[in-house]
Amino acid sequence: MTYCVATLLDTGLVFLSDSRTNAGVDQINTFRKVTVFERPGDRVIVLQTAGNLGVSQAVITHLQEAIADPAGPPSLANARTMFEAAQRVGDAVRAVHARDANAFHEFGIEFNAAILMGGQIQGEAPRLFSVYAAGNFIEATPDTTYFQIGESKYGRPILDRVIRRSSSINEAIKCALVSMDSTIRSNLSVGLPLDLVIVKRDAFNVARHLSIGEDNEYFRGIRSSWGESLRLAFTHLPNPDWVGG
Amino acid sequence: MTYCVATLLDTGLVFLSDSRTNAGVDQINTFRKVTVFERPGDRVIVLQTAGNLGVSQAVITHLQEAIADPAGPPSLANARTMFEAAQRVGDAVRAVHARDANAFHEFGIEFNAAILMGGQIQGEAPRLFSVYAAGNFIEATPDTTYFQIGESKYGRPILDRVIRRSSSINEAIKCALVSMDSTIRSNLSVGLPLDLVIVKRDAFNVARHLSIGEDNEYFRGIRSSWGESLRLAFTHLPNPDWVGG
Repeated sequence: MTYCVATLLDTGLVFLSDSRTNAGVDQINTFRKVTVFERPGDRVIVLQTAGNLGVSQAVITHLQEAIADPAGPPSLANARTMFEAAQRVGDAVRAVHARDANAFHEFGIEFNAAILMGGQIQGEAPRLFSVYAAGNFIEATPDTTYFQIGESKYGRPILDRVIRRSSSINEAIKCALVSMDSTIRSNLSVGLPLDLVIVKRDAFNVARHLSIGEDNEYFRGIRSSWGESLRLAFTHLPNPDWVGG
Repeated sequence: MTYCVATLLDTGLVFLSDSRTNAGVDQINTFRKVTVFERPGDRVIVLQTAGNLGVSQAVITHLQEAIADPAGPPSLANARTMFEAAQRVGDAVRAVHARDANAFHEFGIEFNAAILMGGQIQGEAPRLFSVYAAGNFIEATPDTTYFQIGESKYGRPILDRVIRRSSSINEAIKCALVSMDSTIRSNLSVGLPLDLVIVKRDAFNVARHLSIGEDNEYFRGIRSSWGESLRLAFTHLPNPDWVGG
């Protein structure tokens, strides 16, 4: 399983992904789920993928091959807007579907793919999209500060409660890590290391790309103190008095 | 959608259910999902149901008819143990499946049913079971303090963090309400009023059965102060310093 969350803020974007994939309980692997396309000063595009790993890898390969071939098809490198970039991601998903869907169907495998794509292209504000298996997509509006893919429910309540467009990048990082921690605790198939990618508005590059493992001191602090803070906040809530003792 | 949670404590059991069912976005109804069978001094059995409402109602009706007919089949009224009671709930699910499954299949409707059953029968400690659509079931062991059915993920992190067998009934009520609040916030199809049933160990009756609506002062307090406590706890966590400002 996978959990990825991307937040769109007034000051930039924060992407956090786990790196665990599994095809049954005793076959758990670590694969990176984040891909960055960067042309400093012009554009930065970050992709996070969930779903069938073969599909995700094929989609990313399609996109990379198009970028590498200047005489080739339209690509993320020459998309004029993030909307156009989202269309190209959708087209790549559809190309993989066209090749694989029948065989999947024959073996009863679901064609599932979910992609978050965010970033900024010169001339636009930062934008964030969520692309579905059918190649269609939605964009984050001012009311939508984050998108999630994969095992999204455990980590959602904290996002709903604290993240706003006006949150700082540091708050969004902290919130994404708390959200990831709740998910990891409740679903063993979501696991470390984590990939954190930070994009600042109008910088047109990746401000920071961190791999967060067991040894990351800040995340270890979050994990121990968040649980403790939650328990403390819980203890401070008054108990009901509906039954004695 | 439904969300039900049941906790098994050293001192008793706490059951909380929402009451919203829906069959599409514009058809939302309120039905009670909790059924109590009580014979003071001898036994108390509480059932919570999720899944297809017709299936749930048919299962409960089977169980009630068996109880009402002293010459009839084995029932919850004469089960010698909670294990036997769980078998009878499983048998009732299988009876409904035998009647309906083919027709469901023809219409592409999934036969889904999930039932939590807990309580105490004279001669035993309190016990808690989770019964599946196939009529099989699992029991809460000392490591398992709670079971959930329905829309369970949003409300799970807080349960994982604070509920233990040794928690008090009042703490378990508070925790179930916080868990329900997180679920209601993230899934519109889970809604008020809530049904809360409290069973104290060795009392062999229902200590309290409350319907909690918008006007319940304690739950309103939980809803407003929990969100605030979470935000406060979040604010007190240190920010990372991986990017400036």
